[in-house]
Amino acid sequence: MTIHESFAEEVKIDGVIISRFMPDEDLFESLKKIAKDHGIQRGVILSAIGSVKNVVFVNVRSHAGLPVKKEDMMEAEQPGPFELLSLEGNFFPSQEDGEPVIHLHAILGTSSGPVIGGHLLKATVFATVEIILGSVAGSSVYKGKSDVTGRMELFNK
Amino acid sequence: MTIHESFAEEVKIDGVIISRFMPDEDLFESLKKIAKDHGIQRGVILSAIGSVKNVVFVNVRSHAGLPVKKEDMMEAEQPGPFELLSLEGNFFPSQEDGEPVIHLHAILGTSSGPVIGGHLLKATVFATVEIILGSVAGSSVYKGKSDVTGRMELFNK
Amino acid sequence: MTIHESFAEEVKIDGVIISRFMPDEDLFESLKKIAKDHGIQRGVILSAIGSVKNVVFVNVRSHAGLPVKKEDMMEAEQPGPFELLSLEGNFFPSQEDGEPVIHLHAILGTSSGPVIGGHLLKATVFATVEIILGSVAGSSVYKGKSDVTGRMELFNK
Repeated sequence: MTIHESFAEEVKIDGVIISRFMPDEDLFESLKKIAKDHGIQRGVILSAIGSVKNVVFVNVRSHAGLPVKKEDMMEAEQPGPFELLSLEGNFFPSQEDGEPVIHLHAILGTSSGPVIGGHLLKATVFATVEIILGSVAGSSVYKGKSDVTGRMELFNK
Repeated sequence: MTIHESFAEEVKIDGVIISRFMPDEDLFESLKKIAKDHGIQRGVILSAIGSVKNVVFVNVRSHAGLPVKKEDMMEAEQPGPFELLSLEGNFFPSQEDGEPVIHLHAILGTSSGPVIGGHLLKATVFATVEIILGSVAGSSVYKGKSDVTGRMELFNK
Repeated sequence: MTIHESFAEEVKIDGVIISRFMPDEDLFESLKKIAKDHGIQRGVILSAIGSVKNVVFVNVRSHAGLPVKKEDMMEAEQPGPFELLSLEGNFFPSQEDGEPVIHLHAILGTSSGPVIGGHLLKATVFATVEIILGSVAGSSVYKGKSDVTGRMELFNK
């Protein structure tokens, strides 16, 4: 089934979690653990800073079109460590199995000057990650594969 | 009238909207539509990621002073598409006509490596934009032109 | 004492402040003033954009390890002005004296193209900073020095 519909849903942020992630933790696994431990089905990152290492991210190539194909994405693997300057994103349950689908974009500071970043596939905590997570209530938003974009997209059932 | 005053106002975020913007939507028009449809006069972006194309943004030139003049701003037009790594900003009503004045700063990932961005003038959705918007209640903040900075600034009436 | 523990604490954001910072204000001092004037012990930046000048920030060098040593950090001092594209961070009281320890990461747009940024040590407002600050209630989180990371880290007493 193609998931390709616009929506705007009124929800509540009915809980907020402050957490510190420790060195060598996997960023995605630590987020999943918080979601599970605190019974959060849908979450949004309200704030996150810290430092990370062993980062893998992707960016879309210039002039790519829809649906996005594998060869339209350019992957970068960087040992770091880097200051985590911004981490934006959310998780919503998969329509298939209800497991959280985590969607994160990261921006990283480098000592050589330029800032780098992309759609995050993997990151390990270097010194710390300080995260403030909002729990979303009253939502019927899920993630499902869209034939139009070729990616997992938000939709509301 | 010059709008040039400091303030710090206690408000509430009394509602939260989750929305998915669709390919080829204008980012500013889609934000305005949500504001209108949901009766939101004042809003702040709590989180936004996705991908955009046909982006126009400006940055202030080094050594510029106040008031900022047109020639102090450098405009960049980029076809993209780009991962939208961060989108920060807000909208408050204009003191003149009450229409929302949208103020957005965007950060974009490029496949060639460096991250780019600036004060956003125009952007079109590429694959998706996932936005979590907070509705601000109990506020008397407006936007008005400041003679001192030369720009539309927040002030509280 | 070494502060080196993981935690995830359920809190509330029980108040929100909207503020405009004025030209030539010190970003850290202005944040401290809001915290003091409004009785906010623990705060998180929910949104902040604007423009800044006379910025000092640091980034961690590639291949640095823990604990982070002074020579692992590379400092950059930039007169600007710059668009403030993203400002993420928080403040929590020091375990030593209860004073707020402000932790900010900034991302700045340059007119020459690339975006720069890092862990912020100093910044002065150029034209404006528009900040939306959340006040954190129900938290027992403090900042203390960690022997393991060599930095001030969040912990929960």
